[in-house]
Amino acid sequence: MPRYKLTIEYDGSDYVGWQRQANGPSIQEAVEDAVFALSGERTEVAGSGRTDAGVHALGQVAHVDIDNDRLNADKVRMGLNFHLKRAPISILDCIVITDLEFHARFSARRRSYLYRILNRASPPALDRGRVWFIPRDIDAEKMHAAAQGLLGNHDFTSFRSSHCQADSPVKTLDRLDVSRAGDEVHVRAEARSFLHHQVRNFVGSLALVGEGKWSPEDLVTALEAHDRSAAGPTAPAEGLYLVSVGYPETSP
Amino acid sequence: MPRYKLTIEYDGSDYVGWQRQANGPSIQEAVEDAVFALSGERTEVAGSGRTDAGVHALGQVAHVDIDNDRLNADKVRMGLNFHLKRAPISILDCIVITDLEFHARFSARRRSYLYRILNRASPPALDRGRVWFIPRDIDAEKMHAAAQGLLGNHDFTSFRSSHCQADSPVKTLDRLDVSRAGDEVHVRAEARSFLHHQVRNFVGSLALVGEGKWSPEDLVTALEAHDRSAAGPTAPAEGLYLVSVGYPETSP
Repeated sequence: MPRYKLTIEYDGSDYVGWQRQANGPSIQEAVEDAVFALSGERTEVAGSGRTDAGVHALGQVAHVDIDNDRLNADKVRMGLNFHLKRAPISILDCIVITDLEFHARFSARRRSYLYRILNRASPPALDRGRVWFIPRDIDAEKMHAAAQGLLGNHDFTSFRSSHCQADSPVKTLDRLDVSRAGDEVHVRAEARSFLHHQVRNFVGSLALVGEGKWSPEDLVTALEAHDRSAAGPTAPAEGLYLVSVGYPETSP
Repeated sequence: MPRYKLTIEYDGSDYVGWQRQANGPSIQEAVEDAVFALSGERTEVAGSGRTDAGVHALGQVAHVDIDNDRLNADKVRMGLNFHLKRAPISILDCIVITDLEFHARFSARRRSYLYRILNRASPPALDRGRVWFIPRDIDAEKMHAAAQGLLGNHDFTSFRSSHCQADSPVKTLDRLDVSRAGDEVHVRAEARSFLHHQVRNFVGSLALVGEGKWSPEDLVTALEAHDRSAAGPTAPAEGLYLVSVGYPETSP
């Protein structure tokens, strides 16, 4: 039975998140419903990981097994997009996976996120629900310099949601870049995996640095406290995008 | 009585267009309602020109006279944004106009538009209603080269809506650039003023060039026919953005 690897773009605004839940519509459920409409099979679409309610994706990855000889990768992509045409969800890419060990979640080696802050006097019109609006001036260069103090292998308890289900708060952060692009400030984060709310909690604290309320040293002090209450607030979900998920070269 | 010049961003998706109309909500009406909520005055907000249903703006310009001593430019901007907070409309800038002759429409000397085409295999998820989705490959360089044949002073009847209310079909087109930006093809058009549907009709014909169905000569032949039926279809409203409106330096 062929296993398909899907690359998925979505607007998470009107969803409870990636993961199927009883309390509202999820991206996973919408894609699974499209698989059923296309193939007649009720089967799980396994994502690389959850995204929270309101979080978007430019390149979420998932896999699904579909036992249907009339389908191929192109037909799956186009067929799912046809059945998803009323949803803000698009299958950007679909390939057949030959490595039978491939699993969208367990094979993943790298997650890349983008966080968009709109930093101007007036609220967003076109990007409502797509950015965190901060009207006060923030200094992206200071934020970037401070962010470098979080890189590497640390106990990230201070930036971990109390609902996090990870076994350990120790993670290795490979990239945390902050840069200005016109009216926007972009935070780019990369790691093998993240704790629940980790990127949003980084951004909430970095914004304090950007506003001049925190020094770079305050950020390191917060990290070393191993205490969620030592760090800044959680930035809103709506500015966060799962950009891409990386796999070993042997698992395309 | 002070005259305020407003620069306005909006998502036109759920509106009948800029202009107040009986058949549905307009941007103009929403801003006039906000002026009333702020100042208690029912007064016209005069735009630089109409935009069609579904067309967006990054920088529409309008003026409004408000007779209220307690207000100033900053208070008008913030107050209107407060009352517009449930609408996808944002007042980006507000200044007091000292030139009593200034009129957002009649003083305008330049209109700049952007048209966004999403040119990839899969439909938009995050940019639904914000781009024209063309899944077939289009060649932006060919489109740009052909577009240069439309520059200058011409009778643009072939690219004019039958509902156009302009006195003359003769206009001077100053810029029509086509360029690729990743998965998108951008068309940028500038002129003192445009006929109704002129930019969307340009784009509809340029797409035929981009797909290889039309040669650059076909585009010139269409222009010279002075006949709407000689040109290509009207591109959808949702890809079009009014980027900015220019005024003489004496009218800031």
